[in-house]
Amino acid sequence: MTTEDAPRKGISRRGLFGAAGAAVATGVAGYAVHSALSGEESQAADNTGPVEFHGPHQAGIVTAAQDRLHFAAFDVTTTKRDELIALLKEWTAAAALLTAGRDIGQYGAVNGPGEAPPEDTGEAVGLPPARLTLTIGFGPSLFDKRFGLASKRPAALVDLPHFIGDDIEPGRSGGDIAVQACSDDPQVAVHAIRNLARIGFGRVAVRYSQLGFGRTSSTSRAQTTPRNLFGFKDGTNNLKLEDAEKLEQQVWVQPEDGAEWMAGGSYLVSRRIRMNIEIWDRTSLGEQETIIGRGKGTGAPLGKAEEFDAIDFVAKGSDGEAKIPMDSHVRLAHPQFNNGAELLRRGYNFVDGSDGLGRLDAGLFFLAYQRDPRKQFIPIQTQLARTDTLNEYIHHVGSGIFACPGGVTPGSYWGEKLFA
Amino acid sequence: MTTEDAPRKGISRRGLFGAAGAAVATGVAGYAVHSALSGEESQAADNTGPVEFHGPHQAGIVTAAQDRLHFAAFDVTTTKRDELIALLKEWTAAAALLTAGRDIGQYGAVNGPGEAPPEDTGEAVGLPPARLTLTIGFGPSLFDKRFGLASKRPAALVDLPHFIGDDIEPGRSGGDIAVQACSDDPQVAVHAIRNLARIGFGRVAVRYSQLGFGRTSSTSRAQTTPRNLFGFKDGTNNLKLEDAEKLEQQVWVQPEDGAEWMAGGSYLVSRRIRMNIEIWDRTSLGEQETIIGRGKGTGAPLGKAEEFDAIDFVAKGSDGEAKIPMDSHVRLAHPQFNNGAELLRRGYNFVDGSDGLGRLDAGLFFLAYQRDPRKQFIPIQTQLARTDTLNEYIHHVGSGIFACPGGVTPGSYWGEKLFA
Ligand code: HEM
Ligand code: HEM
Repeated sequence: MTTEDAPRKGISRRGLFGAAGAAVATGVAGYAVHSALSGEESQAADNTGPVEFHGPHQAGIVTAAQDRLHFAAFDVTTTKRDELIALLKEWTAAAALLTAGRDIGQYGAVNGPGEAPPEDTGEAVGLPPARLTLTIGFGPSLFDKRFGLASKRPAALVDLPHFIGDDIEPGRSGGDIAVQACSDDPQVAVHAIRNLARIGFGRVAVRYSQLGFGRTSSTSRAQTTPRNLFGFKDGTNNLKLEDAEKLEQQVWVQPEDGAEWMAGGSYLVSRRIRMNIEIWDRTSLGEQETIIGRGKGTGAPLGKAEEFDAIDFVAKGSDGEAKIPMDSHVRLAHPQFNNGAELLRRGYNFVDGSDGLGRLDAGLFFLAYQRDPRKQFIPIQTQLARTDTLNEYIHHVGSGIFACPGGVTPGSYWGEKLFA
Repeated sequence: MTTEDAPRKGISRRGLFGAAGAAVATGVAGYAVHSALSGEESQAADNTGPVEFHGPHQAGIVTAAQDRLHFAAFDVTTTKRDELIALLKEWTAAAALLTAGRDIGQYGAVNGPGEAPPEDTGEAVGLPPARLTLTIGFGPSLFDKRFGLASKRPAALVDLPHFIGDDIEPGRSGGDIAVQACSDDPQVAVHAIRNLARIGFGRVAVRYSQLGFGRTSSTSRAQTTPRNLFGFKDGTNNLKLEDAEKLEQQVWVQPEDGAEWMAGGSYLVSRRIRMNIEIWDRTSLGEQETIIGRGKGTGAPLGKAEEFDAIDFVAKGSDGEAKIPMDSHVRLAHPQFNNGAELLRRGYNFVDGSDGLGRLDAGLFFLAYQRDPRKQFIPIQTQLARTDTLNEYIHHVGSGIFACPGGVTPGSYWGEKLFA
């Protein structure tokens, strides 16, 4: 039998959003309407709408952190520079559609109905854009001899050093290209990565992929601070999208930083951090709070009452000891003890089943954006790896570093300046 | 330093829900208020509220399927019957609190503030109940010699046979006890399983655990039908909670079924089904629809226009072939060709990273409830395994069967009748 017998209707996602969706769709197709908006300004008011894809910076960095993550690192399998460029162009066009909540193409539209594989895999039909953002980054390995990019490798895109206690699995680390998909609906994030993987077939292969089920950071003052799997509020002293000046200092690569093609971009460090939640759960509340340096219930710095009270590193308790212990996580990670270095943290909680030893394979997929990892992640993590008491309960098992270029303007593509 | 210096506030989840939360809390503590409600009647109107834990049936079976899953199978590590019973009592008390959106106990309340580990792990503080349900089931292995339960093993709790094409990994299969946690918030579902695992420390160990990021079935006519990772609507012809009479025939174990302690309960079959999405995605739309027997866009049976139109197995196309192909999934699985047997499907989409071959480890964590697997899952799956064209694209890699007893009444505990 053939399917032409049946009066099927291809439901495109576009059709479902009425006027607002249509406007977005026009903007995407015409590559014009939203071009002046920056990522910061285009936050959707609710969490079902779209986040603007085009702008001076890539979305998904200072965008108010969405609830769910699908992160994928790809190995480039083609050795042809032209094929890689063609792929990045196709991905960019797809990303503009996906983030607008639209399917990629029509069902089987290529060779007449029914004869071709559907262009879109379909599992997001009926779902709203759900604030999907797609953020691309290029790993150090992309700058080897294959694509003639060696001279374009930014000095800041260093290979991360080995940190004390690291137990890094190569299969969960590195990657030529990373795509971070964030959305308030996990099916939308999964759909996006899957369709990019599919478009890339024969040119890239998924090296590893990570689902995050809950954000562990807030990146906007409008968001409540979520909790990580140690039960603590996480993201209180994070860089926030409202801190425009700090973002320029700490997150966005500036024209004077070298590697011209990275201006307006940011460096992403990803760390898969296993958390030994079973051991943590047997630690007393007092010990837990001493390790972090904040109260578990309120999230307030020890010695203070409210979450957003400033940390007082000088105050001493009745026992003469600093209220914020010298080896507490917030002290060791604080800019005051790191030459003013800060990070925009954007991590996600994960549980990937169990580990064969009766324990949940749970933890934090740490994602941090910054202007220069040599001055930010690396020194901070060096200090944490050396003295943070938290290390007794955590374990870094995956690692990546990626140069995420500036935003895409209508008509350009992801990484255009890199290949220029 | 001690933490007593700091004016911490233990924020209990209870405090956050105002009057409604307080009423629920009283009901739980007093084990009285809601006792007359059945699971079907107590659906929360929005998806942040609680689902009643007590009732004639366990919640989480006909409860309108929540969006997220955390499923865990446990091995019992104690060999003492008394310890197992004590655990089930503690779990039941905890489950009543968790499903009401309350923490288990107070932070460090046991030995004075700060000195004891917090009773609750804390990562759900500030989150609403989010329709959490916790559903327990007992696997065949629990009825071995250890706990004197051999004579209580229901005849319907068979060991599942090997089906053609099965490629079952023992580490992802079986289990003495399963707990299905469903919620509209994944952090709430993760928190619940984690705290049960923690309470069980030294008595049970997690054998395997599975996160599902999106439901693949609707179990109520009030729900829209979600899509699975093949992009098709899934759950259209599912048993629905509104079909009270059918539920008695097909889902709930009746007093005359033998194994008295199972009356009001149901048998759960779980199958971890890997879906070869990369291969599926290269299949034409026509072929995909022929394999399933429904249109991809609309979800309508082939030859019909609307999703909920009745399937016409007799109608032929202009080519003289049945519009619903003989080897299509919906024909082979339909009650008309299975002696009237039906299932209440309640599965979830999963993506567990990638498989080392450049492909996503993605699929369906199939969960189906039924009155008797010998008459329902086993014959249906035998037929599907033999002739379903879908088998070219899927792969059963995990398997479990569990006897889920009837509901818990206030004052009783999970499995009380089994141990009576
Ligand atoms: C599983 C591992 C980790 C856990 C559980 C954790 C947890 C926390 C918590 C609870 C806070 C306090 C709340 C806040 O201000 O956000 C915090 C702060 C912070 N963490 Fe972590 N963290 C982890 C790993 C890391 C890593 C690897 C880094 C960077 C190398 C890092 C950098 C920071 C920074 C910069 C702050 C803010 C400190 C301040 O300025 O007050 N954390 N973390
Ligand atoms: C990855 C594997 C599977 C996929 C992708 C899949 C997909 C589907 C789809 C798209 C439908 C049509 C919509 C609906 O009525 O819900 C359906 C129906 C159905 N499936 Fe599956 N299914 C899978 C595995 C199974 C298994 C293992 C069983 C049971 C052994 C099963 C039993 C059924 C039944 C009973 C129906 C309803 C048929 C009817 O009465 O019309 N499915 N499935």
